[in-house]
Amino acid sequence: MRLAELSTRSGVSTATIKYYLREGLLPPGRRVSATQAEYDEEHLERLRLVRALIQVGRVPIASARDVLTALEDDSLDHNSRLGTAVSALPHGPESAADDASTEAARHTVDALLDRLDWEYIQGHGADSPAYRMLVTAVGTLSRLGYPCAVEDLAPYARAGRQLAVSDLDLIERYDSPDEQLQAAVALTVLYEPVLLALRRIAQAEESNRRFGQGARE
Amino acid sequence: MRLAELSTRSGVSTATIKYYLREGLLPPGRRVSATQAEYDEEHLERLRLVRALIQVGRVPIASARDVLTALEDDSLDHNSRLGTAVSALPHGPESAADDASTEAARHTVDALLDRLDWEYIQGHGADSPAYRMLVTAVGTLSRLGYPCAVEDLAPYARAGRQLAVSDLDLIERYDSPDEQLQAAVALTVLYEPVLLALRRIAQAEESNRRFGQGARE
Repeated sequence: MRLAELSTRSGVSTATIKYYLREGLLPPGRRVSATQAEYDEEHLERLRLVRALIQVGRVPIASARDVLTALEDDSLDHNSRLGTAVSALPHGPESAADDASTEAARHTVDALLDRLDWEYIQGHGADSPAYRMLVTAVGTLSRLGYPCAVEDLAPYARAGRQLAVSDLDLIERYDSPDEQLQAAVALTVLYEPVLLALRRIAQAEESNRRFGQGARE
Repeated sequence: MRLAELSTRSGVSTATIKYYLREGLLPPGRRVSATQAEYDEEHLERLRLVRALIQVGRVPIASARDVLTALEDDSLDHNSRLGTAVSALPHGPESAADDASTEAARHTVDALLDRLDWEYIQGHGADSPAYRMLVTAVGTLSRLGYPCAVEDLAPYARAGRQLAVSDLDLIERYDSPDEQLQAAVALTVLYEPVLLALRRIAQAEESNRRFGQGARE
């Protein structure tokens, strides 16, 4: 298909597609003349992922490029490619201060991972941006006067565990390894607002149950 | 305590505290002279919440003010105050287009809530920003080519339900209604990165179990 059709089918303007092409977020089309190129279903799929990253995940262009590079790295096996791509996603600001509360947070997180018997992350530890994101979050809680112990984190870890099983089930519905990788990255990003919204809705339900009109009757 | 001590104990600079005072995010101190005011433990606690909102939650000043106003609204009961305060938190960009995919998303979300028997949100529906956030997220998934059905959302809702119970348990550890309200808002914001990080770590665990070296042995 030509650029115009790619634009119509994807719902992305031709100007934006050209920008993605220039930034290397989309592989070039197959040249058919000096001014025209031909695009295929893979371009359409890639465009879907790029929009998920940039429009929903608010992933900076450079990080999006890192994610896409990891997806295409033939030197890595499926699991490593997946891990590298998800690691290239933004993980929020990291705690700048390597202070006492960060050190204590690291202890708490390590104790949690140890208790959960999550071996993979324990082998990778501080290399993993998700690990550092968790340490930063736990450190911030404590610095702001809401210290949390391993027992406080356990229910959130249990929820994370269940969600990961659902996430991977969704991903395994896709047949080819390439589609699975793209879906893994897109769904990691796209289900975050789903999860946060459902938590807030459930909080309102639970709060109403405990403190609302009904609770007093 | 004087401003300098409030700054030392909270870890917030005097310039930032003065800014919060000007913006009405912190109630004025008790004037003790033409140039000096006296602050108390309540200021310290409020400062803790304001930092959670602004530094971690990246809540805009105006929204933070709305959250704090709701917390102090004596015309509301405990449950409504809690709900109003959490509703004033940012909920991400809303879908501008009231198009077919948004309409379909609303159907899916309503069917989910119906199945879950979450009565409170069903009574409030479209008034709730968390509901609109969920509709937007589900609509985006479908527009980007990852349509999700009620069954796909159910595991995320189950996780949300369990998290809400943990959240409310944490909040009920605080004795006074005021402390509970502040904790509810702060912990809603501060546990979001904890949850997202734990989901990503658990994804790496689950991915390694399914696709990693160990899975092949």
